[in-house]
Amino acid sequence: MTQMNTQVVLKKPLQGNPSAEDFALRDVAMPTVKDGDVLVRHIYLSLDPYQRSAMSGRHMSADGPLAENQMPSGGTVGQIVQSRHAAFSEGDYVLHHGGWQAYSVSNGEGMRTLDPAKAPLSTYLGILGMPGLTAYASIIKLAHVQAGQTVLVSAAAGPVGSTIGQIAIQKGARAVGIAGSDEKCRYVTEVFGFDACINYKDAHYLDHLKSALPDGADIYHDNVGGQMLIDAMGCLKDYGTVILCGLISQYNDPSRAVNLPVALPIVKRAVMKGLVVYDFEDHYDDFLDLVAPWVKHETIKYKEDRVDGLEHTGALFAKLMNGQNFGKALVVIDPEEDIHHT
Amino acid sequence: MTQMNTQVVLKKPLQGNPSAEDFALRDVAMPTVKDGDVLVRHIYLSLDPYQRSAMSGRHMSADGPLAENQMPSGGTVGQIVQSRHAAFSEGDYVLHHGGWQAYSVSNGEGMRTLDPAKAPLSTYLGILGMPGLTAYASIIKLAHVQAGQTVLVSAAAGPVGSTIGQIAIQKGARAVGIAGSDEKCRYVTEVFGFDACINYKDAHYLDHLKSALPDGADIYHDNVGGQMLIDAMGCLKDYGTVILCGLISQYNDPSRAVNLPVALPIVKRAVMKGLVVYDFEDHYDDFLDLVAPWVKHETIKYKEDRVDGLEHTGALFAKLMNGQNFGKALVVIDPEEDIHHT
Repeated sequence: MTQMNTQVVLKKPLQGNPSAEDFALRDVAMPTVKDGDVLVRHIYLSLDPYQRSAMSGRHMSADGPLAENQMPSGGTVGQIVQSRHAAFSEGDYVLHHGGWQAYSVSNGEGMRTLDPAKAPLSTYLGILGMPGLTAYASIIKLAHVQAGQTVLVSAAAGPVGSTIGQIAIQKGARAVGIAGSDEKCRYVTEVFGFDACINYKDAHYLDHLKSALPDGADIYHDNVGGQMLIDAMGCLKDYGTVILCGLISQYNDPSRAVNLPVALPIVKRAVMKGLVVYDFEDHYDDFLDLVAPWVKHETIKYKEDRVDGLEHTGALFAKLMNGQNFGKALVVIDPEEDIHHT
Repeated sequence: MTQMNTQVVLKKPLQGNPSAEDFALRDVAMPTVKDGDVLVRHIYLSLDPYQRSAMSGRHMSADGPLAENQMPSGGTVGQIVQSRHAAFSEGDYVLHHGGWQAYSVSNGEGMRTLDPAKAPLSTYLGILGMPGLTAYASIIKLAHVQAGQTVLVSAAAGPVGSTIGQIAIQKGARAVGIAGSDEKCRYVTEVFGFDACINYKDAHYLDHLKSALPDGADIYHDNVGGQMLIDAMGCLKDYGTVILCGLISQYNDPSRAVNLPVALPIVKRAVMKGLVVYDFEDHYDDFLDLVAPWVKHETIKYKEDRVDGLEHTGALFAKLMNGQNFGKALVVIDPEEDIHHT
């Protein structure tokens, strides 16, 4: 009996908000392991908003839109089951872009070996992975947060936003979040320790935001774009810093994008910086040195929104892209390994 | 016979592009000089695009829209004809916001004494005035121009743009301008010494812009906003700097504003900074020390678009706001004094 690989593929090119029915499971032959390659059995798959724009060919990581029966890419944590590569051994735990599937073959490019003793393996997709590095790049490397400052962050219940606020707090700053439900806001203040969190679906959202920021924000990290960026910049102090990092508000439908009136940064004398996390890969070890001990000792917290089994990938992704996830979205592909590493 | 003051006033609140007919001359009583005041006879009046948005109450310098029969504000160079202020004497040449009129009374707040030996008096409204300080703040204080860099600037034939390019060249950078006619572009390259200047009304404007910037621009100074900002940012190097300083494209009609897609600064990893020249008044002396000798020795050049007599103010302002002026727009109110100081 030949072992098979399982993939999640698009049924047809996506239009607008994705739903679970847009995706299908497919069994395919195991990939061939050539000289210099490794075969990885995936334990966890990361689901992230940028994957939506990549599926439509609009993200910088994408070559073009994904066609019918094609598999989305995505970050994975896995274990090497066969190695023909000098730098990797069977049994190594690795992080790479394995895609929405159970197994992948890689030539090792961009692959990182993980230490399961440092932190639970799934955190390398979240707070110790790309979202965590994004948070570190934003609040430490670009915004240079200082003690006594006030930091405002959107999508505060998500892996980037929650990490930004918690790093800021560790640096002596005050953190105010924006999230999409009262339940998320409670979690943001009670578990992540933010000073305040505003539910943007509340009718009095703007009033609440202004009340939580009586002197304005020194730093605003934007994951969202659109009207929320405009609202948040209205609460920025003069000479404040804005980190532009994501456009969740328009990944599903770029035709409904709300662009930025340029008068706003002029009147605020704002400094705005575009952030692309790929630029900060060289800072990964510094980031891990700073944040991994905080995670291990639970000085800072994280939340995961998990499903068990690749067959639930589409449903979780739809939830994520409709703002209904709560925490870092990830698929447990191999529940047995999961038990050993959480 | 009582001497009268002459003012230029709005006939009615402005809509859209201004025309000469929107303004009228009015004789009024001379203002009263109280203790602590000075009376200034204006020699030159500065016309600037920000005055258009101030007339509609949209500029940060404005308290509200200008009503029928009200006088616009504006920078003036004049001579003190009566002083009841300890810091100013009769005969002093001064720069202040005297408004669109022949005489003004001031309590001296924000008033600066000018040295007519340092440079022609009219330059204190242009290259050595607010436009020059804006240029200095942008290219030196915010963009930190370095030798070898390429600087792109819109409205390059105007007083801010032409000064930015020329300061950049003095610092060893390459300057590329954008202007609104072939005639302006010739002047920008031949007189101001820019390396290239692109006419944005040319059908192949974007191709020409890309050809003039084979490696992209390190710095873009934006006076315009709207589509030109988007086009110019498309030619920015990754990690380039953008100084946001004006919105000429929407002063006449904000309802037609083209806002900025936030994906652009993210993909470019741009650093964008809002500039308000009033923040840099403390740097005026440093600015003057740097730039006044260049002006005096004609190391850097300036161009003025003048009319003689307050009765032509409205016509020149309309020309300015329709992009048909060529150089710093100013009204010579007292031609006799002009002869002595140019």
